[in-house]
Amino acid sequence: MKIIRMVDAADLDDIAIGGAILGTGGGGDPYIGKLMAQQAIRRKGKVKLVDVDEMPDDALIVPGCMMGAPTVMTEKLPQGEELVVAFHKLENFLGRKVDAVLCGEAGGINSTTPFVAAAELGLPLVDGDGMGRAYPELQMVTFTLHGVSATPMVLADDKGNSVVLETISNQWTERLARSCTIDMGGSALLAFYPMSGKIAKQAIVRGTLSLAADLGRALREARAAKADPVAAIIAKLDAVLLFEGRVQDIERRTIGGFARGQAKFEGLDRFRGHRYRFAFQNEFLIAERDGEAIVTTPDLITLLDVDTGDPITTESLKFGLRVAALAIPGPEKWRSEGGLALVGPRYFGYDIDYRPLDKARIAAMA
Amino acid sequence: MKIIRMVDAADLDDIAIGGAILGTGGGGDPYIGKLMAQQAIRRKGKVKLVDVDEMPDDALIVPGCMMGAPTVMTEKLPQGEELVVAFHKLENFLGRKVDAVLCGEAGGINSTTPFVAAAELGLPLVDGDGMGRAYPELQMVTFTLHGVSATPMVLADDKGNSVVLETISNQWTERLARSCTIDMGGSALLAFYPMSGKIAKQAIVRGTLSLAADLGRALREARAAKADPVAAIIAKLDAVLLFEGRVQDIERRTIGGFARGQAKFEGLDRFRGHRYRFAFQNEFLIAERDGEAIVTTPDLITLLDVDTGDPITTESLKFGLRVAALAIPGPEKWRSEGGLALVGPRYFGYDIDYRPLDKARIAAMA
Repeated sequence: MKIIRMVDAADLDDIAIGGAILGTGGGGDPYIGKLMAQQAIRRKGKVKLVDVDEMPDDALIVPGCMMGAPTVMTEKLPQGEELVVAFHKLENFLGRKVDAVLCGEAGGINSTTPFVAAAELGLPLVDGDGMGRAYPELQMVTFTLHGVSATPMVLADDKGNSVVLETISNQWTERLARSCTIDMGGSALLAFYPMSGKIAKQAIVRGTLSLAADLGRALREARAAKADPVAAIIAKLDAVLLFEGRVQDIERRTIGGFARGQAKFEGLDRFRGHRYRFAFQNEFLIAERDGEAIVTTPDLITLLDVDTGDPITTESLKFGLRVAALAIPGPEKWRSEGGLALVGPRYFGYDIDYRPLDKARIAAMA
Repeated sequence: MKIIRMVDAADLDDIAIGGAILGTGGGGDPYIGKLMAQQAIRRKGKVKLVDVDEMPDDALIVPGCMMGAPTVMTEKLPQGEELVVAFHKLENFLGRKVDAVLCGEAGGINSTTPFVAAAELGLPLVDGDGMGRAYPELQMVTFTLHGVSATPMVLADDKGNSVVLETISNQWTERLARSCTIDMGGSALLAFYPMSGKIAKQAIVRGTLSLAADLGRALREARAAKADPVAAIIAKLDAVLLFEGRVQDIERRTIGGFARGQAKFEGLDRFRGHRYRFAFQNEFLIAERDGEAIVTTPDLITLLDVDTGDPITTESLKFGLRVAALAIPGPEKWRSEGGLALVGPRYFGYDIDYRPLDKARIAAMA
């Protein structure tokens, strides 16, 4: 098997940063997932990151994720054992062994959690994911577009409870899994969307874990060289700098466990005189300039600290903070009719049509 | 195998009435369960009701129940298929066949639902249950007192979704199953508390389905003979007539899916001059006379229509209705320290000690 890279504990620092950039303001803080993964790698050895084309068509590939909000235990760091339990229970249910782990969501905390499963189970990790970013709901994966069922799926908690779901749709899975996660204390570890190698080759967004690692390394190297961190990140992506500006106003409310709200910015330097507004539902979903939507989901909207290049989440937005806002074209798969029905602006309640962020628009904005 | 009786579709009319009497004002309307069971018996044949001592020690015995509130479909009567699905999925999970069905709750709708499973699966039904009455929560069964885990447990809904739970306690099962049931539209069918014949012989409340059938028949025969229906029911039980009276006031509120409230009555005839108050949480839990608690959970408090003998639920209580109130000693198992911790007055938030309704107190009240 051709290995893209052997991921060690130090690489996880890069991947977590890259995952936060792809997290588009949400996706959960990668910090705890990173600690869990580093712990697992130190104990069990490096993780083989492999291309999906290396997997046999009949391989069983299973994504591993955290659902909900991770809670930090002051006395005990989460060990990731729940994720191992979830995988073992899914194997028992299916009556066969898992051949490789997959990432469900390359943005936020779930950029790192699959490394826990891969290290603990001694399995390769496929380079790619089901979103190419972060999204708030379980059915919002390209796997759904390819007809893959989220179930049979196992949720496991830190207390020793577990749940196996079998549902008639991935929307039903989201509904039941969300309730169980809340009951379980607000977070649970999942093994779900079991799929064959053949399906995985069609259904995943490829290369997103390598991309996260590259983004993190680019940022780290730019800082070491005292170079512009924002420019270093843009150089790794087909991204456009939407603006540099300052946070003027933030409105947040929590509805059904999701952080919803908006943030307003005034442009600085060459963006002076323009006003910007981001709407978010966990992730940044809509970017407006002077009242007009210029970027929308499924394209990525990411905020960086203009000085350090650190990705900024909706929770860490503060009045006066100087930021650089990037737009990154979303995965091609999301631009289909089915993709937009799952994650387009209208699904989230915005009365806006999606206009793809393509090369022409990037050139016009740059 | 010695069979206590072969239960046919007509017997279900008696059992549903008896189940409503044991339902102590709650437990859900037995009507839909009865229709489902009668349909299954007409299609698949009579159900063998057997004594638990007839079951081998290594038999696998599984209770079947409905959780939540049954919803009547106008276009389609529930077929009970979900219950069959729940049993089959539990068999798959355990890797063995179920040998007999058990009743979880002899009061209310679940007096009849296990007949659906027994008829559809062609299995005997053990005469007994886990409550000897109705209670609102899943862990409130004598099985819990005997260390039987509610899980592995399967919930199935009418849409085709199912959930397997494995938990660290029956309280955790209640919590997770309650959320799933709400998501599933308010009701789900369950196969749970799998237990051996050996454990069942110790853990069940015996004979409660026969008792329900006897109560229903006694009421039916009394009506046919134009005899006193309330007296006919009392004659079948170690019961005491608490009072005859008229409903004066009802207070209801719905909290977390449970109907909570109180009902007030004025005594009539030889009870004239006394005032009575019942507190309920789905079921009647406390009966007071002139401000003093005279009967409490786990003893049974049941209301009958004084003219017809029909059991009256908390939902059908109406101002001015003439009722006869009965108290029936609860199962011996509930009177232990562990039993009272699960279902005593203090668990439900009443600052009252349980005083057993024994022969001496019955004689004093009669």
